[in-house]
Amino acid sequence: MYSFLNDYSEGAHPRILEMMNEYNLEQNIGYGEDIHCERAKGYIKDLIDRDDVDIHFIPGGTQANMISISAFLRPHQCVISVDSGHIYVHETGAIEATGHKIFPVLREDGKLRPEDIRKVLEFHGNDEHMVQPKMVYISNSTEVGTIYSKTELESIYKVCKENGLILFLDGARLGSALVSSKNDLNIEDLPNLCDAFYIGGTKNGALLGEALVIVKEELKKDFRYSIKQKGAMLAKGFIMGIQFEALFKDDLYFELARHANAMSKKIADAIQSEGFELLQEPCSNQLFLKLSNKILKEMEKEFLYVINGKIDEEYTSIRLVTSWATTEESVNALIKFFKNANSFL
Amino acid sequence: MYSFLNDYSEGAHPRILEMMNEYNLEQNIGYGEDIHCERAKGYIKDLIDRDDVDIHFIPGGTQANMISISAFLRPHQCVISVDSGHIYVHETGAIEATGHKIFPVLREDGKLRPEDIRKVLEFHGNDEHMVQPKMVYISNSTEVGTIYSKTELESIYKVCKENGLILFLDGARLGSALVSSKNDLNIEDLPNLCDAFYIGGTKNGALLGEALVIVKEELKKDFRYSIKQKGAMLAKGFIMGIQFEALFKDDLYFELARHANAMSKKIADAIQSEGFELLQEPCSNQLFLKLSNKILKEMEKEFLYVINGKIDEEYTSIRLVTSWATTEESVNALIKFFKNANSFL
Amino acid sequence: MYSFLNDYSEGAHPRILEMMNEYNLEQNIGYGEDIHCERAKGYIKDLIDRDDVDIHFIPGGTQANMISISAFLRPHQCVISVDSGHIYVHETGAIEATGHKIFPVLREDGKLRPEDIRKVLEFHGNDEHMVQPKMVYISNSTEVGTIYSKTELESIYKVCKENGLILFLDGARLGSALVSSKNDLNIEDLPNLCDAFYIGGTKNGALLGEALVIVKEELKKDFRYSIKQKGAMLAKGFIMGIQFEALFKDDLYFELARHANAMSKKIADAIQSEGFELLQEPCSNQLFLKLSNKILKEMEKEFLYVINGKIDEEYTSIRLVTSWATTEESVNALIKFFKNANSFL
Amino acid sequence: MYSFLNDYSEGAHPRILEMMNEYNLEQNIGYGEDIHCERAKGYIKDLIDRDDVDIHFIPGGTQANMISISAFLRPHQCVISVDSGHIYVHETGAIEATGHKIFPVLREDGKLRPEDIRKVLEFHGNDEHMVQPKMVYISNSTEVGTIYSKTELESIYKVCKENGLILFLDGARLGSALVSSKNDLNIEDLPNLCDAFYIGGTKNGALLGEALVIVKEELKKDFRYSIKQKGAMLAKGFIMGIQFEALFKDDLYFELARHANAMSKKIADAIQSEGFELLQEPCSNQLFLKLSNKILKEMEKEFLYVINGKIDEEYTSIRLVTSWATTEESVNALIKFFKNANSFL
Repeated sequence: MYSFLNDYSEGAHPRILEMMNEYNLEQNIGYGEDIHCERAKGYIKDLIDRDDVDIHFIPGGTQANMISISAFLRPHQCVISVDSGHIYVHETGAIEATGHKIFPVLREDGKLRPEDIRKVLEFHGNDEHMVQPKMVYISNSTEVGTIYSKTELESIYKVCKENGLILFLDGARLGSALVSSKNDLNIEDLPNLCDAFYIGGTKNGALLGEALVIVKEELKKDFRYSIKQKGAMLAKGFIMGIQFEALFKDDLYFELARHANAMSKKIADAIQSEGFELLQEPCSNQLFLKLSNKILKEMEKEFLYVINGKIDEEYTSIRLVTSWATTEESVNALIKFFKNANSFL
Repeated sequence: MYSFLNDYSEGAHPRILEMMNEYNLEQNIGYGEDIHCERAKGYIKDLIDRDDVDIHFIPGGTQANMISISAFLRPHQCVISVDSGHIYVHETGAIEATGHKIFPVLREDGKLRPEDIRKVLEFHGNDEHMVQPKMVYISNSTEVGTIYSKTELESIYKVCKENGLILFLDGARLGSALVSSKNDLNIEDLPNLCDAFYIGGTKNGALLGEALVIVKEELKKDFRYSIKQKGAMLAKGFIMGIQFEALFKDDLYFELARHANAMSKKIADAIQSEGFELLQEPCSNQLFLKLSNKILKEMEKEFLYVINGKIDEEYTSIRLVTSWATTEESVNALIKFFKNANSFL
Repeated sequence: MYSFLNDYSEGAHPRILEMMNEYNLEQNIGYGEDIHCERAKGYIKDLIDRDDVDIHFIPGGTQANMISISAFLRPHQCVISVDSGHIYVHETGAIEATGHKIFPVLREDGKLRPEDIRKVLEFHGNDEHMVQPKMVYISNSTEVGTIYSKTELESIYKVCKENGLILFLDGARLGSALVSSKNDLNIEDLPNLCDAFYIGGTKNGALLGEALVIVKEELKKDFRYSIKQKGAMLAKGFIMGIQFEALFKDDLYFELARHANAMSKKIADAIQSEGFELLQEPCSNQLFLKLSNKILKEMEKEFLYVINGKIDEEYTSIRLVTSWATTEESVNALIKFFKNANSFL
Repeated sequence: MYSFLNDYSEGAHPRILEMMNEYNLEQNIGYGEDIHCERAKGYIKDLIDRDDVDIHFIPGGTQANMISISAFLRPHQCVISVDSGHIYVHETGAIEATGHKIFPVLREDGKLRPEDIRKVLEFHGNDEHMVQPKMVYISNSTEVGTIYSKTELESIYKVCKENGLILFLDGARLGSALVSSKNDLNIEDLPNLCDAFYIGGTKNGALLGEALVIVKEELKKDFRYSIKQKGAMLAKGFIMGIQFEALFKDDLYFELARHANAMSKKIADAIQSEGFELLQEPCSNQLFLKLSNKILKEMEKEFLYVINGKIDEEYTSIRLVTSWATTEESVNALIKFFKNANSFL
């Protein structure tokens, strides 16, 4: 079986694992205060060209989201997100479990607009009977594989700043977004265009780990208390440090993302040239497409993918994901399948 | 100024206050374990014809909702509500502050349908990455003044029972619903058609207090711990007991609701006969109507009401509420206003 | 039976109820934004000689505590309290339910000392693996009936300010403390000696209500959102306004407290002159005494009181409470009982 | 420098890392539903001789504690723990952040007694103004390095069962406890002597991971929802599966613990034979000792350790920890130091 299920089916990229092997018996200080975390933070600060940010390594995305949101907000404040936002749909209510409402905005393409934010603010006013919107949560790339342009991000951040809202960017798949052929954002733009964001490791070659970057000064204080309280301060925090060291001491992080996108591009091209419908513009390592159930019946014999939902009696929406570990062989097999797919109709 | 702002602008109905005066210096046991609470519970049990329910007097509706939901659910479970539901909009995130997500269903008329519930269940499946729907929250009358028919409530409860969902009915304005000319539900139907509900006192003549009725056996245990933990166990709980005693020892509760509805009916008739648009079918003591801003500019000189939202540049949606204390005089003044209103256009 | 169970067995003092009757049918704005709340706040500001404080009327003490603590603290911060503190023992974990740990200090007399605070700070250091102490909670009078002197309160506030701690004073029984014959604090000292405090109404003649005074500027923002979220914003908030208006438009509040203390003093004198042991210095309207079980067996035939705990096989600790409503007759009956009590041994 | 700081300074035991390397590029299902987790669970079930338990791999101890406690308890319920319990002291209020109070029992040796539990139950009674004790939390080995005997554990579980309390055993250092020369518990006793427990990997050779074993049927339901909600469901859950597979497919887990204890034993013997004072009986891989500040001043030049607290002006309490990775060389250096230590006085 060829798997296009997700971007976390394998262990770590070999160069990461190599470094973990190399440093394995070295003694390190616990809880992320070690030399590897230090070095990895240095590489990231260089990359984003900002020395005045705080960086924390967090094991997973749900944790990065729940820790940040619960640390940044007061109890009566809420987060604005699109309705496909990871925090809104796929974290089993982790954010609400810390006490905060997420106000959903319906957007098919997974991308929030400035006018969405303004409408939410207008709806809530300063009415103390309603929650107080205080944070905007966006993902790049989004949960449906789309990406934000620099202009779009600028316009969102502008409305946030005008209204005292914190802009938080979930970068679980940031690598794929930044190396997209459609992308015009540089990673060094991010600290200037949001208040906090993270650079996802888990879905781009690491065993686990997200590098959370806190830009806004007021959000930095006592953040490690929050990490510990939510159970995200690994005793052996250095294993995240080593991995991010491997990812950022050279270009590895983007190299891996480029491979994932290249594989995805090949698939998207085949899908389109065979006349099948992509439900979102192909930008990153996630593709969403509409396929006839008859085709899927054949496809599932050879390929693993995620069913995203039923469209109607005849059609289904599915997701295909590529990663640093996706092989040319599996992509070619899939392309070959699509070339014949119309014959199953 | 004549006020149609809400149904909690005055103190208590005089017969309630009389009873409070009568028993004022009598010594009572604290925390709702007194003879008045006991008697009031007895009257309510007789009324709903069920002796096997637990009844608790809770100071307010937000408290009744947050205590019940947090006591009934496990941390990963969520509540289904229409998007105009009081818990979703107007409780400053009280439910989320106890850790639970509310999943909103869009419904203009404020009434949930069985198919809404089924769709939410289907969307969530048994996916542990998503919250688990476990409770359905409905209000009767709803936040937009509509009411549920017996058939509608039966069909909702059926889908709840088939799917292991708890059905919770917010009855902050239950009185008005049950005496509506459109109503075919009896109060003794309620224990058979939901798992817990409350009979609102605050909005129907009491100073404060909602009578929460827990029907489902599994939901009863240790409930008073939850009341205390959420700060809703009044030291002088007997002041709620006395008020519900006054409301239910005879027909006073419904008498008050009937007055509110009668006043509302008169206004609705005038509105319609003058050709203005009611946004919801007039059923209870809340009317929602669409008025030209020019008319409102005149209306606000003499009347108090709540602006519900801007419809377009020219029209606004407003809410008018009547209560046990609404005078014929104020209603007549309002009717007179509507009769002349077209002249302001 | 004569009840010395507590200070909330009766309704409201007649002068309070009178005012509630007087204003009963007057129309008021909801949610505490009415003229009576306004006036009551004015009286209290005059009394404490501070116009720059925020005052909120909260239905009960547990609510006042949980709302304040959860609004004032960030998630990783904790409260320091004596082990008999109401928040630590008798609120069913209301504070922890909002996410905050209470760190208990063992003190028989219910009074926290500056050195206690310093020890807790030293123990926690700046260790992010432990909660961060950020608030000190004290009660005056305390849960065991003792009171703080001005010097004691000054020394506590000094250590708080030196260490960036918020000092919060639970004044559920503040009236009794301030009119104690042992007291040297003036109510106008309070805003200078703590960051927030409340003036208890429930236990001093009101049906319900505590007047929370927030002094420290940083703690004021958005507080009404917190009141609403925790379910403490009464629709008919004016019923608290009217009661505090009645209590503070003249000397009624202190008059009631003086009566309670006078009754308590008479009982304490009798207890001591008959040779029974008071477990705490008699200061306020609560007396704690050690009595032989043989005496209690007789006492319970005629008097109601709270059993505080078993001391040993032969002796029990009990609590006697007086209030504005305690009659001379009941006190005389109790005194008479103590005069004969030794005959039961 | 020789480090005796803790048992999580190095990466993974080489045999574990080898297996991670071996399976690195193999494709696995995400979120712990892979074949390695499956196999590891099988090994553990065989070891504890129980097929009817649920096993979950959780990244860290704080997470295992907070997820279990918040999933097992209702909101008004509390946990009983000794005052040195990890959840009470060193988790930054993680448990309280999920809403639950921890009731501390003072015990110098870190071990809870049946009479402690009974006293806590008696103190709380069935008083709904207080939290309801529902769980007992113990650690084995304890936070001060002591261990429970089989008889002790039996007597605790007995009082738990008699009173409807859940017994939860934190086994972050279970390996060291079970191979202690003082131990008479077998790992297969555990499912019969508590309701849930975990087998710590992080502190015994793994990069991260604790194997949580849920024995009691009622506690199993929907547990994976709780894991996800608290951010502990690793996308690449198989990396924990592989590690536990390596630890339990043969005797590796206990082999590592035996090494740690042997190293500790050598140190303890030297300490005692040189006349220094161990503050707790040496049982496991943690030693607590009292040393003169003069000696510590020399010791810190060559050795890393944790300062546990100041005893008096002259003496300090410190902790020494050994692990699977502690070298004979470092132990010999430390022993040599103690042999000369008296010369520094």
